[in-house]
Amino acid sequence: MSEVKKVVLAYSGGLDTSVILKWLQDVYQCEVVTFTADIGQGEELEPARAKATAAGIKQIYIDDLREEFARDFIFPMFRANTIYEGEYLLGTSIARPLIAKRLIEIANETGADAISHGATGKGNDQVRFELGAYALRPDIKVIAPWREWDLNSRQKLLDYAERHGISVEMKKGKSSPYSMDANSLHISYEGRILENPWTEPEEDMWRWTVSPENGPDQATYVELSYQNGDIVAIDGVTHTPHQVMEKLNKVAGANGVGRLDIVENRYVGMKSRGCYETPAGTVMLKAHRAIESLTLDREVAHLKDELMPRYASLIYNGYWWSPERAMLQTMIDASQIHVNGKVRVKLYKGNVIVVGRQSDNSLFDENIATFEDDAGAYNQKDAEGFIKLNALRMRIAAKKGR
Amino acid sequence: MSEVKKVVLAYSGGLDTSVILKWLQDVYQCEVVTFTADIGQGEELEPARAKATAAGIKQIYIDDLREEFARDFIFPMFRANTIYEGEYLLGTSIARPLIAKRLIEIANETGADAISHGATGKGNDQVRFELGAYALRPDIKVIAPWREWDLNSRQKLLDYAERHGISVEMKKGKSSPYSMDANSLHISYEGRILENPWTEPEEDMWRWTVSPENGPDQATYVELSYQNGDIVAIDGVTHTPHQVMEKLNKVAGANGVGRLDIVENRYVGMKSRGCYETPAGTVMLKAHRAIESLTLDREVAHLKDELMPRYASLIYNGYWWSPERAMLQTMIDASQIHVNGKVRVKLYKGNVIVVGRQSDNSLFDENIATFEDDAGAYNQKDAEGFIKLNALRMRIAAKKGR
Amino acid sequence: MSEVKKVVLAYSGGLDTSVILKWLQDVYQCEVVTFTADIGQGEELEPARAKATAAGIKQIYIDDLREEFARDFIFPMFRANTIYEGEYLLGTSIARPLIAKRLIEIANETGADAISHGATGKGNDQVRFELGAYALRPDIKVIAPWREWDLNSRQKLLDYAERHGISVEMKKGKSSPYSMDANSLHISYEGRILENPWTEPEEDMWRWTVSPENGPDQATYVELSYQNGDIVAIDGVTHTPHQVMEKLNKVAGANGVGRLDIVENRYVGMKSRGCYETPAGTVMLKAHRAIESLTLDREVAHLKDELMPRYASLIYNGYWWSPERAMLQTMIDASQIHVNGKVRVKLYKGNVIVVGRQSDNSLFDENIATFEDDAGAYNQKDAEGFIKLNALRMRIAAKKGR
Amino acid sequence: MSEVKKVVLAYSGGLDTSVILKWLQDVYQCEVVTFTADIGQGEELEPARAKATAAGIKQIYIDDLREEFARDFIFPMFRANTIYEGEYLLGTSIARPLIAKRLIEIANETGADAISHGATGKGNDQVRFELGAYALRPDIKVIAPWREWDLNSRQKLLDYAERHGISVEMKKGKSSPYSMDANSLHISYEGRILENPWTEPEEDMWRWTVSPENGPDQATYVELSYQNGDIVAIDGVTHTPHQVMEKLNKVAGANGVGRLDIVENRYVGMKSRGCYETPAGTVMLKAHRAIESLTLDREVAHLKDELMPRYASLIYNGYWWSPERAMLQTMIDASQIHVNGKVRVKLYKGNVIVVGRQSDNSLFDENIATFEDDAGAYNQKDAEGFIKLNALRMRIAAKKGR
Repeated sequence: MSEVKKVVLAYSGGLDTSVILKWLQDVYQCEVVTFTADIGQGEELEPARAKATAAGIKQIYIDDLREEFARDFIFPMFRANTIYEGEYLLGTSIARPLIAKRLIEIANETGADAISHGATGKGNDQVRFELGAYALRPDIKVIAPWREWDLNSRQKLLDYAERHGISVEMKKGKSSPYSMDANSLHISYEGRILENPWTEPEEDMWRWTVSPENGPDQATYVELSYQNGDIVAIDGVTHTPHQVMEKLNKVAGANGVGRLDIVENRYVGMKSRGCYETPAGTVMLKAHRAIESLTLDREVAHLKDELMPRYASLIYNGYWWSPERAMLQTMIDASQIHVNGKVRVKLYKGNVIVVGRQSDNSLFDENIATFEDDAGAYNQKDAEGFIKLNALRMRIAAKKGR
Repeated sequence: MSEVKKVVLAYSGGLDTSVILKWLQDVYQCEVVTFTADIGQGEELEPARAKATAAGIKQIYIDDLREEFARDFIFPMFRANTIYEGEYLLGTSIARPLIAKRLIEIANETGADAISHGATGKGNDQVRFELGAYALRPDIKVIAPWREWDLNSRQKLLDYAERHGISVEMKKGKSSPYSMDANSLHISYEGRILENPWTEPEEDMWRWTVSPENGPDQATYVELSYQNGDIVAIDGVTHTPHQVMEKLNKVAGANGVGRLDIVENRYVGMKSRGCYETPAGTVMLKAHRAIESLTLDREVAHLKDELMPRYASLIYNGYWWSPERAMLQTMIDASQIHVNGKVRVKLYKGNVIVVGRQSDNSLFDENIATFEDDAGAYNQKDAEGFIKLNALRMRIAAKKGR
Repeated sequence: MSEVKKVVLAYSGGLDTSVILKWLQDVYQCEVVTFTADIGQGEELEPARAKATAAGIKQIYIDDLREEFARDFIFPMFRANTIYEGEYLLGTSIARPLIAKRLIEIANETGADAISHGATGKGNDQVRFELGAYALRPDIKVIAPWREWDLNSRQKLLDYAERHGISVEMKKGKSSPYSMDANSLHISYEGRILENPWTEPEEDMWRWTVSPENGPDQATYVELSYQNGDIVAIDGVTHTPHQVMEKLNKVAGANGVGRLDIVENRYVGMKSRGCYETPAGTVMLKAHRAIESLTLDREVAHLKDELMPRYASLIYNGYWWSPERAMLQTMIDASQIHVNGKVRVKLYKGNVIVVGRQSDNSLFDENIATFEDDAGAYNQKDAEGFIKLNALRMRIAAKKGR
Repeated sequence: MSEVKKVVLAYSGGLDTSVILKWLQDVYQCEVVTFTADIGQGEELEPARAKATAAGIKQIYIDDLREEFARDFIFPMFRANTIYEGEYLLGTSIARPLIAKRLIEIANETGADAISHGATGKGNDQVRFELGAYALRPDIKVIAPWREWDLNSRQKLLDYAERHGISVEMKKGKSSPYSMDANSLHISYEGRILENPWTEPEEDMWRWTVSPENGPDQATYVELSYQNGDIVAIDGVTHTPHQVMEKLNKVAGANGVGRLDIVENRYVGMKSRGCYETPAGTVMLKAHRAIESLTLDREVAHLKDELMPRYASLIYNGYWWSPERAMLQTMIDASQIHVNGKVRVKLYKGNVIVVGRQSDNSLFDENIATFEDDAGAYNQKDAEGFIKLNALRMRIAAKKGR
């Protein structure tokens, strides 16, 4: 336990990681480097700097990773229409590999031999942080205080904070009874009354979306422009990836879009109940499927659909930096070359309704699809042979008495 | 073309199949048996009998298949959370194999050597009818007039009808510019302005649902009871499968739930645009996932998810009566043994929101999942070894310079 | 460490488990029940009884599990044409769940609260034993001495044995430098010179097979009769499952059939090199595919093939007693209903050559397959439509300039 | 039928395509361009030129495609360890897309509006030729005489040849009762006595391999060097792709390696029996798996294995030029970046035995894999947590009474 010289801590400035900071200094007697990232969680970062300074930290990293997060993590994931267990848009999962990567980069820059994080021993996040870290630097030491210390309740944590003069009133005003996580893609809630899956969440839990009931009575229409499977413009105006997230979060959230309440299967083996707000992501999933419906070959689309659950599990389970995720990504990205065009979406009281899609790369052929006379574009007689040969194996089987 | 003695025609009593009836008599000079089924499309069947009689038909079958349809086709399909191309609930697809089966049964009963249907040569339905028919009776002859005759436009059809004294004012009052199909699971619209995927459907196209805008301002809560993956009661009251469909269609449709507007890939190779109303089905998909989230093992659920797209394609493409669909069904059904319990759902202006799930077979363990002290139910230290070994292959690779 | 009252030990009577027996008595101060199974490894079991008695054991279980092993484990696995990483026939993997099951049954019978085994902390077997045990009795305690003690080398083990008067000359005569495992399905070799994957194994390592060079100059023909996917007779003579294994091991081994030399990926994250002899299994895989080639529907066969690697991984990784393996087995078993008939196999100097297959359930139709005139059984013109519609999506794409 | 101006015929110079040539001139009254390719079938091409000239053909293409075939078709396919239905190495299937591509290229060069081939309406080859052609030039016309004419028996063909002065004694000396196909990867046999799957092929049918019985009594060792998954040298000597095929066919065939006798499922819906000789391919499959076993990540390898059956079906069914095959290829090729090193293989009387593999990109770590003291490279205690968490979901289920 004593061999650590310098540790990079993923530091939010909140109670938990402030206690961890102190605890690392005390128990490991090592230098601590703090790393605080803006990944769109919507909190001021400067207080974290002040607190770290006050705690005697000399190397303080505060990074704005919002564009990188959207461009290199969120967008690639949405190219696959990724959704875990039919419902979850992987908001927490997709941020962790970026944090892991920066932790290792900073460790390399500062000559640190260890990293530390505030994730508990029961959750998925420890796995995501650590698998990423090990994949990127195999000899890194990982300190996961929640798995080591005996501060296994809120009260013990508070006592420790008080004993060591750690300011507890932090995050005042928005203190919440829930365990929460936020970034450009989503905000999540776990714990407390949610631990009973039969209980409906209270309205005041939600932070990013109005309820469908409180959305405007007039629908909002949004036009999304795609290039290679990514949104590049909204209503005709070019947006960077992070600007897309920001803009869509705002407009979708205002229309009550993006709430989710599920029981999910954690990688560590238990079921847990979580509530999520993913306003932009909910629109993006629907709209991306719509632009693909016009521009993607059928079999390519089906193959993507069949592989998606596995790709989603890889991300959920923390394998972003694995070779198998990279391999799948190669294929997914290759599929997006023609996914260009526009999707028109209507947002209304919780609904995301696709009302139009168009593309210069469209494979939709009105001449063939039409119910009217198609002037010979399609020979209906071909269907007979098509059916007959597709039926042949079943006919043979039936003749043989099956 | 002349060797048919007796043909069973899937007969709706509408213009198209009335023309087909006459055409079969004329061209094939054979006896025609009509078969008209109630599969929940919401139309009177007796007019079909009258018309068939008027056309000189002696063997007229009119069957109420609604319970069989829900019990043996819709329900098994929903056990798999089946959805085609991420969106479509397979409303048309799932009805065809039942029609195919009855056509063959009636052919066997009446000594017919052929069947006939009114599906065009461009669509999926011809495939679904005929694959089913061939699988169930390999030597059956199939007459698909739309692939044979030259009545390839609406006007030619009307002329033919007039020439042969076929009443054309039929279906008056609800005549529609769209190509439509309806049954207990859904109603579909294709053609006309929908052939441009950039055009939003007109509000007056929709028949089974109010628009989200016109749904009640007060949400409706529904409690669904599951047994072996199937809904057996609504709000505590036992319902047969068809009653479930009827009840949920009504309550969901009244709340604006179940509209869908997509571009899909047909089995015959083209893209087409379709709009669908599936009120009950939309609720059922969401609720079934919710009850499974509590009662299904993680890996079982994931395996189901990975196989679902293929299962959906099998149904979409007309392979209900294939051995591979049967094999998958065996597995799906086996997975449902513990899928029992209740799901509470909130319906509101187009939204289906799961607000609670509970089950005596729940695998959710509050003692383990809790963020509070779990009294040793879970040893957080186990996570370290779990992560370390899962990371091992990536660490070795990284050490080797990858 | 001290809370164990009674432990059931998987006991071979060899050095390792004899040391473990003593170590359990010393360290855990608990009663030990020994369990020794005949799963076809070809060793006398009575010496194990004598040694256990000498060590003061009062409850000694010695079971002949050979028929159960073949019937309930080997045979179901072969129904899926199971093969791990394209090569390995899972000889060790498939025996472990049976041992796990018996350990738990005996624990239940004897009121034991723990089980123990001699598998190391680096291998797959610990996982297989323990996942099975936990699945069958979730509160069981597991003692895995190799993960606990400090006897981490051969010499330390020998010293311990000597210190405690454990007879070391055991297994004399057939002592081997390799780490070995044997049962009715195979014998395996790991370690020593095999740890260099570039080194060819020495001829005298192999025990169950002659080298291809030393096989007879005359081929041996064997006729296998299948019922529901299982071999039920050899050369017309009914055999029980274990008799099948015994007979085929003998005849195949005598013809140099069944050697394998591979590098495989362990579940715990490392690559390892192993050599295997699986004479019967090598014949069974080939012959089962042959009888399926005649009797299985194409799409059923292909679906099985696509799921097989996952099924193999489940077994390799120790998930025999998992719900997902059970679910897959349901489907696999359902596929075998028509897998009846005979396969003729030629064995010659390492080769297994299928030379004939026949079945009353054959789907092979000579009239259709023939290159000669088929009297109209198949209409070649159907192929045009079949090809045209299958090509349609690619033609549309090409027309659009892709 | 009469609108064809110029047709490119895949012309072997044999009886069938000579008759087709004449028939095209007569029936379609159009100009014929002949295309004859050397893809390693081992026949003189100049006689084809002479015959075409004699038949009045002005545009005669004779191409040596052997390197392109090996480099762009065979090698990419082997990167996936491709094998259809567990047995077949796709020798015929993989050559057809190349022929289709050249037919279209030549049609484009010569201003032809149609292509023609000699494949029957019952087989897979028609599909492979035509899907490729349509994908590469969607408006091409395809003339498949076997589906059109009435020369549906050998005798009628011979009569036609005689009537039109087509020399019949061609291919004398090696006339065969079997329907055959040959190229650098394999030679195949179908028809006649093979149409009974219970009948063993006669020894004198086989042309490229000696029987195992007649292989040399001394084994032959071969060392294969891999770069990015492809063989680049044999026994240390650089070889081009086609040279690899030639060399390995020779050495493997001389050792009785590569015979196969199977019943397979054709895409057009029937089962057929085929015999194949694939000497080089049999070695390549085995050796490629061996080099991958050392250099590929476990999960990458497993994902490849799970997708392989589908990739194999795509090739078998004629979808080489489809977007889904291209997408899969992207992924497969990306996986091969580290597949470098050497494999040593022993060939002996039908056996291909891997006896060594080594690689600078090896992921095999002797320090970790060793059964001896590993000096802390691997912490055995990690396994406990690994197992415990992997077991958790099953333990919870068991506690809940499942």
